[in-house]
Amino acid sequence: MARISGQQDGDGLLSKLGDAVRAARRAQGLSQEALADAAGIDRSHMGKIERGERNVTIMNIARIATALNAAPSDLLREAGL
Amino acid sequence: MARISGQQDGDGLLSKLGDAVRAARRAQGLSQEALADAAGIDRSHMGKIERGERNVTIMNIARIATALNAAPSDLLREAGL
Repeated sequence: MARISGQQDGDGLLSKLGDAVRAARRAQGLSQEALADAAGIDRSHMGKIERGERNVTIMNIARIATALNAAPSDLLREAGL
Repeated sequence: MARISGQQDGDGLLSKLGDAVRAARRAQGLSQEALADAAGIDRSHMGKIERGERNVTIMNIARIATALNAAPSDLLREAGL
């Protein structure tokens, strides 16, 4: 999966997306591990996504959104993107 | 950039996203090359994105949306995602 440096992500959008994932997860009372498992995403990778350390793909955004009972577009809007 | 097989993309979301990018681009009278250049994305890669042949990252979705004067969440919503 694509890595990304903070410098390349000048707008901090990876952090915004990660924060939105974490907030939605916590609002549903899910642990990071539970969300990772529900989304079919490696637990270590999910941690990096929440910390804004990975350039998430649309397929993984969709998997995460589905696990959160949300639309991908709603997840991005919650992130301010 | 991550490649993806049609089989993995069971919901056809890459095609939906690619179709939405193409529709928004054409609505603004932009050629595929002009959009690729404006977004800072390789022209060949942009073609594959529009054809649903690439698992687009959020950074590239944001670059494309910016070049189309749209929010990333709007682009996904237009794609039905």
